[in-house]
Amino acid sequence: MALVVQKYGGSSVADAKSVKRVAKRIAEAKRAGNDVVVVVSAMGDTTDDLLDLAAQISPLPPKREMDILLTAGERISMALLAMATNNLGIKAKSFTGPQAGVLTDAAYGKARIVDVVPHRIRTTIEKGQVAIVAGFQGVNRKEDDVTTLGRGGSDTTAVALAAGLGADVCEIFTDVDGVFTADPRIVPTARKIHRVTYEEMLELAASGAKVLALRAVEYARRYGVPLHVRSSFSGAPGTLVSGTYGDLIDPNAPDGDKEEDVMEDPLISGVAHDRSEAKITVTGVPDKPGMAARIFEVVAASGANIDMIVQNVSAASTGRTDISFTLPEGSGPSALAALRDVKDEVGYENLEFDDQIGKLSLVGAGMKSHPGVSARLFGAVRDAGINIEMISTSEIRISIVTRADSLDDAVRAVHTAFGLDSADGEAVVYAGTGR
Amino acid sequence: MALVVQKYGGSSVADAKSVKRVAKRIAEAKRAGNDVVVVVSAMGDTTDDLLDLAAQISPLPPKREMDILLTAGERISMALLAMATNNLGIKAKSFTGPQAGVLTDAAYGKARIVDVVPHRIRTTIEKGQVAIVAGFQGVNRKEDDVTTLGRGGSDTTAVALAAGLGADVCEIFTDVDGVFTADPRIVPTARKIHRVTYEEMLELAASGAKVLALRAVEYARRYGVPLHVRSSFSGAPGTLVSGTYGDLIDPNAPDGDKEEDVMEDPLISGVAHDRSEAKITVTGVPDKPGMAARIFEVVAASGANIDMIVQNVSAASTGRTDISFTLPEGSGPSALAALRDVKDEVGYENLEFDDQIGKLSLVGAGMKSHPGVSARLFGAVRDAGINIEMISTSEIRISIVTRADSLDDAVRAVHTAFGLDSADGEAVVYAGTGR
Repeated sequence: MALVVQKYGGSSVADAKSVKRVAKRIAEAKRAGNDVVVVVSAMGDTTDDLLDLAAQISPLPPKREMDILLTAGERISMALLAMATNNLGIKAKSFTGPQAGVLTDAAYGKARIVDVVPHRIRTTIEKGQVAIVAGFQGVNRKEDDVTTLGRGGSDTTAVALAAGLGADVCEIFTDVDGVFTADPRIVPTARKIHRVTYEEMLELAASGAKVLALRAVEYARRYGVPLHVRSSFSGAPGTLVSGTYGDLIDPNAPDGDKEEDVMEDPLISGVAHDRSEAKITVTGVPDKPGMAARIFEVVAASGANIDMIVQNVSAASTGRTDISFTLPEGSGPSALAALRDVKDEVGYENLEFDDQIGKLSLVGAGMKSHPGVSARLFGAVRDAGINIEMISTSEIRISIVTRADSLDDAVRAVHTAFGLDSADGEAVVYAGTGR
Repeated sequence: MALVVQKYGGSSVADAKSVKRVAKRIAEAKRAGNDVVVVVSAMGDTTDDLLDLAAQISPLPPKREMDILLTAGERISMALLAMATNNLGIKAKSFTGPQAGVLTDAAYGKARIVDVVPHRIRTTIEKGQVAIVAGFQGVNRKEDDVTTLGRGGSDTTAVALAAGLGADVCEIFTDVDGVFTADPRIVPTARKIHRVTYEEMLELAASGAKVLALRAVEYARRYGVPLHVRSSFSGAPGTLVSGTYGDLIDPNAPDGDKEEDVMEDPLISGVAHDRSEAKITVTGVPDKPGMAARIFEVVAASGANIDMIVQNVSAASTGRTDISFTLPEGSGPSALAALRDVKDEVGYENLEFDDQIGKLSLVGAGMKSHPGVSARLFGAVRDAGINIEMISTSEIRISIVTRADSLDDAVRAVHTAFGLDSADGEAVVYAGTGR
């Protein structure tokens, strides 16, 4: 008997009908002999509606009150889901984040989980009942006030509970079939990725794949919680995220499938893209020690997370160089203001801001042992007639920056070049290797 | 400096604009030098919307889940009201029923308050801040689960907090100007009652006056909490409810007014009416000892609260009698079913059910020392050509049952007969005495 934590997002419980469908999935998992703990987000647009209400009331509401307000959404969905599950003859009880023992720090609006003490959840599953927990929320352990976890909060709640309970798998139910080799809206031949390591999933999530919150993947890796990203609509197996390819086991797979679990690492997992960044170029920076460091110090102090950096070779004739870096578009104004403040100190000539860039990232655990991946990537982009403006790499990722309006073409070209296209729409487990 | 507990109902916080208006009232009370604790209901139709959702999900939802669901409404309104109050420069923090220390039994859906331990509320007001508390909810002290208090729950929360905190007054803000001598929709000349005792208010509330929940008045009487029922729209003084006429002091009144506080009891406070009852008549009951007792035993066991009872004189020729009683209309079907089950045992002849009745109640603390009140009441109803079907009395109340379609005329006739009409719409403090 496995202990399964299931997480359902807001689109999976958008209305009464959807709530009932989710309850059926819960009942199936329970009737299959599993212990089941469910984490649920607020229904559909509830959170947006509450944000609208708050905006009508106050331009700058206290964060503590904002958190109390927003957590009402998950209380509604958890209670309704518990009702729907009971209605199917499966005993279920709902719990708020505080009741589930999700203890956080006091950073209202973006609290970090500091501990999980799920006594009541454990008692509930020991009685053979399903525990349904409100995602996205916890309790400030010093004040006994409710907190919200910020972006990706419900995924993180699910992973944290799975870790705290020692669950066999954490199933993330969503409105897509799993993690894909590329965004199917851009690449119609994209295939579902059956298995991926934490490291690859981290790189994909950090590079723009939205299906899983980066923070939840980090948490899962730290505690070794296997994730299963799947559709709440189709019920088909989705994407398994785990430590290595070998130890991934789908608890719902028939026994025959498990023979295939240990397989060679695939070269490439997928191609992610990201349109949310902008580029700042500082021109004419004096080529003196410490000047680049000073620039990034100032930008970091403005609150921006710098992603890629390119420094041109200094022109010997001028003794000056250009430094470009990318950052989230929304951080642009404050970073520019911070740089303007140190113009005289640094002695640069000019600032340029460009929000018409796109980033493509090729991710794959196998690339570290296969030379020639970069060359093939650059060749594919060149053959598509697209200019590469910046490059950065990690052990298992290569990212390039292009013009925003060339990004889709670049993604399609790279997807094809690495043999990721599914000719007939059929899912193939592993992408083409280095051949 | 007074400690004031203010309660705002759902119609007072129906939308963002109303929430802001309530925040202004709170700010005024605070700036006037009071310590302020606020109890708030769910916004407008929120609770009905949640009930609708639940009905779409399950025909018989677990009561625990229903309570968690419904309490979301007050969490939303309390957080929004705290935001709006902070926005006016008054520090305010919101608290759920559990956080406010409202401890209840485990009767989900209709929990009784067993204790109030408002440590956090006290700390908040000691810091000079306003505490805003979700009404209608508490915590099952054995399970740490949220409960709802049922009908009149928010009024009761306010009174219980006022008692627990030793507040000087509990102000019940509502969408009418106070308690009236009759329902102004039926009697346009009805006047606002300035002062009324707990006993009279209890009789009025039990007789159909909807402005205050009976339960909250009982609680206020038990703990001696002065109530002030007033409009959240006009801000004018409303109706004070307290132990005796003498000890009623309006904390907002100028000092000069207090000289008049000790006054003679008025004869009549008002005329209440109630259309929500039905009458069951059991005909041909054998005139043997214990038969009436058995009938009421059976009806009580069916869950019905019996109100008025009339037993006809037994006809000597038959040795049988008719017994009529009134009960809430909704309890009719189960009471009838219970009576049918004992037809052979009791040996009655027939059952009659009549939901076309109306009840008029005349309430006044002064009537116990003034003879002739009943005679004047019956005379007024007779002169209006209306038949009286049943009569019951307490020390300070006389109730009669009429046909439902004669009730409004009866209310107007009695209101006039006791000199309660306000000729020019001007409020007069005390009704005419026994002259």
